[in-house]
Amino acid sequence: MTSMDVIVSLCKRRGFVFQSSEIYGGTGSCWDYGPLGVELKNNIKRVWWRDFVQRRDDMVGLDASILMHAMVWKASGHVDSFTDPMVDCRECKRRFRADQVDELAWTHYCEATKGNKFTIPAGEACRHCGARRTLCPECGKGQLTAPRQFNLMFRTFMGPVEEDASVTYLRPETAQGIFVNFDNLLQSTRRKLPFGVGQIGKAFRNEITPGNFIFRTREFEQMEIEFFVNPHETIDGRPADEHWHDRWIAEYQAWFTRYGLRPDHVKLHEHARDELAHYSKRTVDLLYHFPMGWSELMGIANRTDYDLKQHAKFSGKSLTWFDEERKEHLVPFVIEPSAGVDRALLAFLLDAYREEEVRGEKRVVLRFHPELAPVKIAVLPLLKKRPEIVAAGQDLRARLSRRWVAIYDDTAAIGRLYRRQDEVGTPYCVTVDVKTVGDLGKGEVGDQRVTIRERDSMQQIRVPTAELESVFARLLGDAAWADVAAAYPTADG
Amino acid sequence: MTSMDVIVSLCKRRGFVFQSSEIYGGTGSCWDYGPLGVELKNNIKRVWWRDFVQRRDDMVGLDASILMHAMVWKASGHVDSFTDPMVDCRECKRRFRADQVDELAWTHYCEATKGNKFTIPAGEACRHCGARRTLCPECGKGQLTAPRQFNLMFRTFMGPVEEDASVTYLRPETAQGIFVNFDNLLQSTRRKLPFGVGQIGKAFRNEITPGNFIFRTREFEQMEIEFFVNPHETIDGRPADEHWHDRWIAEYQAWFTRYGLRPDHVKLHEHARDELAHYSKRTVDLLYHFPMGWSELMGIANRTDYDLKQHAKFSGKSLTWFDEERKEHLVPFVIEPSAGVDRALLAFLLDAYREEEVRGEKRVVLRFHPELAPVKIAVLPLLKKRPEIVAAGQDLRARLSRRWVAIYDDTAAIGRLYRRQDEVGTPYCVTVDVKTVGDLGKGEVGDQRVTIRERDSMQQIRVPTAELESVFARLLGDAAWADVAAAYPTADG
Repeated sequence: MTSMDVIVSLCKRRGFVFQSSEIYGGTGSCWDYGPLGVELKNNIKRVWWRDFVQRRDDMVGLDASILMHAMVWKASGHVDSFTDPMVDCRECKRRFRADQVDELAWTHYCEATKGNKFTIPAGEACRHCGARRTLCPECGKGQLTAPRQFNLMFRTFMGPVEEDASVTYLRPETAQGIFVNFDNLLQSTRRKLPFGVGQIGKAFRNEITPGNFIFRTREFEQMEIEFFVNPHETIDGRPADEHWHDRWIAEYQAWFTRYGLRPDHVKLHEHARDELAHYSKRTVDLLYHFPMGWSELMGIANRTDYDLKQHAKFSGKSLTWFDEERKEHLVPFVIEPSAGVDRALLAFLLDAYREEEVRGEKRVVLRFHPELAPVKIAVLPLLKKRPEIVAAGQDLRARLSRRWVAIYDDTAAIGRLYRRQDEVGTPYCVTVDVKTVGDLGKGEVGDQRVTIRERDSMQQIRVPTAELESVFARLLGDAAWADVAAAYPTADG
Repeated sequence: MTSMDVIVSLCKRRGFVFQSSEIYGGTGSCWDYGPLGVELKNNIKRVWWRDFVQRRDDMVGLDASILMHAMVWKASGHVDSFTDPMVDCRECKRRFRADQVDELAWTHYCEATKGNKFTIPAGEACRHCGARRTLCPECGKGQLTAPRQFNLMFRTFMGPVEEDASVTYLRPETAQGIFVNFDNLLQSTRRKLPFGVGQIGKAFRNEITPGNFIFRTREFEQMEIEFFVNPHETIDGRPADEHWHDRWIAEYQAWFTRYGLRPDHVKLHEHARDELAHYSKRTVDLLYHFPMGWSELMGIANRTDYDLKQHAKFSGKSLTWFDEERKEHLVPFVIEPSAGVDRALLAFLLDAYREEEVRGEKRVVLRFHPELAPVKIAVLPLLKKRPEIVAAGQDLRARLSRRWVAIYDDTAAIGRLYRRQDEVGTPYCVTVDVKTVGDLGKGEVGDQRVTIRERDSMQQIRVPTAELESVFARLLGDAAWADVAAAYPTADG
């Protein structure tokens, strides 16, 4: 199991993830994606969009705004019900989630030891006086209020005047942008059921206890699908919504493992009846084996016709689909696979991370799927002091970067350069050496071949520079390394 | 000149842009991108990122959070100075921008006509009594207050408690996320000056008067670059910052015209000394000839060392770069090319739009650059009633969509289908017909060729289906239509 600390440290050092506003002490709940992190994150989003929106013929995309009309959140139930029960300390005014307060270590001024201050682990009693926690766990002095509901939406004001009429919220989920556009989507695309709408975008929740790095943050990015089905239709003897619910669960299990999650690190969690949200007929979570334990990677809910009916009721607009066969207007059911970009990225990072021993030395390698790797090709010169080698390397990078993310690095010796690329998951390194360019001063003409090194096997082959585009088109397409490498002589490691 | 109404209507009808929260009357200041709009927008962002971040060896990327520490906006000057002067009506409480109030039509109760109510154009006097506006232009009754400064940032509260300590703002620009990460970026990438940081992301401004469709909105997306240079360096006899400022102006002029803006629709506007922001040494805007007149498409500012110095001062952290040659720590100057995704999209749409007459009928066509076109290939069956044709068309779409955005449409006759694709800018249509599949019932084997139709010339060629991937790789790469088409027989229109 890779520890979170190891990943957090690697992420900062190599430019994957920085703490937001770090120079001001951070916000404790938002993170910034650095030069490698933004490429990794964009790759996850791009592959998701391609696989789930562009390649399918039953999906379209949408990009709705973050700020919407406040009525959207009234209709969706978020204004009234998107709350956590919280308790306040009457003394120090600190606020705690009511369901978590008993899980905190607590401060105790022990009278049996003349008022000495102790910090006592959650759930335990004082060893001196036997007291258990009844007061504020933080200051140890104030009474806690009875639990009250607090809304988790970020509130703001649209327009220059801060008054009730202009209150709105940062969206706590992207889903509602799809529901309120249902009729626009139908009119502009002429779709028939079943069809789905995919959307990627930021959402915001004023979490009481953000934490575990980018797992639970107040600002995060979602990849959501609302897949609309005809509830009167039957597929293989079952209602269409139940059929599609199972299909989407299977699609996502396959997707996450295709791009690098270990199958034994992913499992399903079926929500029990008392866990289900009020709108849900059935919800299944995909759990991932995070360092802090099995936790939600994504959820797949059958939201029934709840949302469309709520918005029809609150807006007075008809949000139905006309079934040509049955000649009737109906409100579709919706299956919602809802995944978080940040959580997916964290899981891919954790399962990609390996510490290996190579010739007695530790090698850290991120075994990213090539589609997810931030950098596809690193061009490295074997000798920095030979200007022809440097120039050839820079030319190659410029050429390869027409099609792939390619970088050039000459700031260390070759062994160190390889390790740097391993550590950020670059699948291929191209090395330019003396043999490539020859030595014109000695009348030597180079062989115009370079070494390609594969990250996981560390195997090296010698390839004519003229063939690099076709070789990488195969390697970064569907071809296996072994199949491509077989056509070329191997080079020394 | 394409009118805005024509574009707004096309955008809604075909699914490019919808009004946000339209079923609730909209917000008047935010917009949603529909199935075609999100593809167009993503293409602009992808091409920008590839051209300005990935292909260059002097740029890296970043994706900072929208919510940052409030001190960021204190240091940047936004808390104190990001304001508009506004006046309020003492009667109806409406609020106006002080510099725009004289440009509004005004309501007048004319005593010369026994108190009749008139709406009088901006700047004009009443024809009956000769009065000029002195009261509220909207209600016509209240006195206006003296101008007061109102901040344009969206205010919200981080954490569950709404108190001063938790106040923060939605970022009004993405730039500051780069400045506060300057040291993290240096440490993780080992960059030397000059180098730049590119970022794409949402920003929010509580504009008093949003308008002109997606031109001025309260939520918008930026593509910003902060390009750091050594102010002590001289290039071609000029300070490096001035040299790079001119280079970035030229880069962007070339970029916008390469992807479809008419050169005569873009011009430069040099800010006069009294127009310059307090941090700027020089600012040049690229103006575009929008339907409402020449307006800012983007700005390119020399922000000097203002931002890094402010953040160093407010955070107490050193934000400098160590010059190995001169052995000194220095604060870089920064050139900031700042473009809006939404404005770029609007400009590309406007210049792509054409109304043409073809055989006596009006044809609407969006002549998008193929890289920007939302759909690259539409597969269309000539006869929907022949199942082999439908099946062959759907197979082709599935095959082509492995590499490009390809759709299948059989919901109208072929002429109508072509017009639909022209109207959304699809560069290529592939038509499957009787000759393609033959008629097995009559013992005919198809020729396995399809027709490719090019959008702008409407020319058609006949191509073996087996060659489609290689043909489209050329057409959607750098090859010209004429060069590719020359190798194939033309087909009837």
